[in-house]
Amino acid sequence: MADAEPKGVVLLDVLKNTFGQRCRIALAEKGVEYEFREENLRDKSPLLLKSNPVHKRIPVLIHDGKPVCESPIIVQYIDEAWPHRAPLLPADPYARAQARFWADFVDKKVRPPYADASHLCKLKGEEQAAAKEEFIGILKLLEGELGDKKYFGGDAFGFVDVALVPFVSWFYTYETCAGFSMEEAAPKLVAWGKRCMERESVAKTLSDPQMVYEFVDRLKKRIGVE
Amino acid sequence: MADAEPKGVVLLDVLKNTFGQRCRIALAEKGVEYEFREENLRDKSPLLLKSNPVHKRIPVLIHDGKPVCESPIIVQYIDEAWPHRAPLLPADPYARAQARFWADFVDKKVRPPYADASHLCKLKGEEQAAAKEEFIGILKLLEGELGDKKYFGGDAFGFVDVALVPFVSWFYTYETCAGFSMEEAAPKLVAWGKRCMERESVAKTLSDPQMVYEFVDRLKKRIGVE
Repeated sequence: MADAEPKGVVLLDVLKNTFGQRCRIALAEKGVEYEFREENLRDKSPLLLKSNPVHKRIPVLIHDGKPVCESPIIVQYIDEAWPHRAPLLPADPYARAQARFWADFVDKKVRPPYADASHLCKLKGEEQAAAKEEFIGILKLLEGELGDKKYFGGDAFGFVDVALVPFVSWFYTYETCAGFSMEEAAPKLVAWGKRCMERESVAKTLSDPQMVYEFVDRLKKRIGVE
Repeated sequence: MADAEPKGVVLLDVLKNTFGQRCRIALAEKGVEYEFREENLRDKSPLLLKSNPVHKRIPVLIHDGKPVCESPIIVQYIDEAWPHRAPLLPADPYARAQARFWADFVDKKVRPPYADASHLCKLKGEEQAAAKEEFIGILKLLEGELGDKKYFGGDAFGFVDVALVPFVSWFYTYETCAGFSMEEAAPKLVAWGKRCMERESVAKTLSDPQMVYEFVDRLKKRIGVE
């Protein structure tokens, strides 16, 4: 089954994968029907290896047999292949460049190392304090861009929102592990996350924050971090 | 002068900067007139710091007072702001995704650490041999994508060509420092580089390979690598 010839739109992914969640949210916003195929990362399917021979990783979107890889590229592809509903990138070239800049900022500054929800949790003492301070600085830059807008895209949920929103599931883990209050550190971002969660596309996709925390907690115990 | 109010199109950069060269090539392909402002990276201009407050780095393109940062985003902006001449990205969504994938591959695999031309030169013995092998593997993946096409963009010089071509100036340094022949390791890429150099946009922009080598050689001596 996992290797049945892909027809229509197929997403190769793991349900709890943050980066794949971007693609699922974009597909849901566009109302695109697709087949989800859960990958086993310890035994990747021949279809995954054939579809992403360069990076050999999820997510991969296969559309009519043609694979697209890397989540920011997949989300842009979804936006361009189904342009008539819920545009994610604005039409104006400068506004597009700004959206790409902030989505890229998420990938450069939040992704490593904070995309690993356990990063802040595994550190201790001064190292953790320094990482926490850095992370809060990143949150504040994002808040500066969000300002008083409803979404990063303005009134419309857009490309930057899609890039960042899967991390909302990790807010609870971040603050619990590193001993700070997301609400105090980044109240606008917390409110934005709640607004995003009112969208069906987001609510049905994001991981349960408690599950993320328990996952990280099990991981800490396994690697011997108290 | 360096802080005169920017008018029209202004590029804040350093002439020998690989990533800024992408922007200059794209602007030349589009026939856009612009003012080049050489930055001093040891004493960055207030205009640079104001225009790129997040990353505080070059290149920055300022168009009618509005800054765009990060070279892949600048090149896409140039393509979208001046769409009527020399399109860099194709029109088809799937072809666009493929072009973005390979430009992103250049940024993920060539950029660090090989974007530092001295990387291969500073290593020694087994470390250098391993880095050389990895680098040649990267070149071969790029050759696989290039195939027998004239450019990565097919018959038209495009987005991936712009992303990769500034590295052609470093081929001589790579092969000289790490003891291999680019011509043997990646003949199609070498031929592609020569074809690109026939374009005025590229020829007038790229650094002199001998200068790159001498720069790296001085650097090696300064840091005490024989």
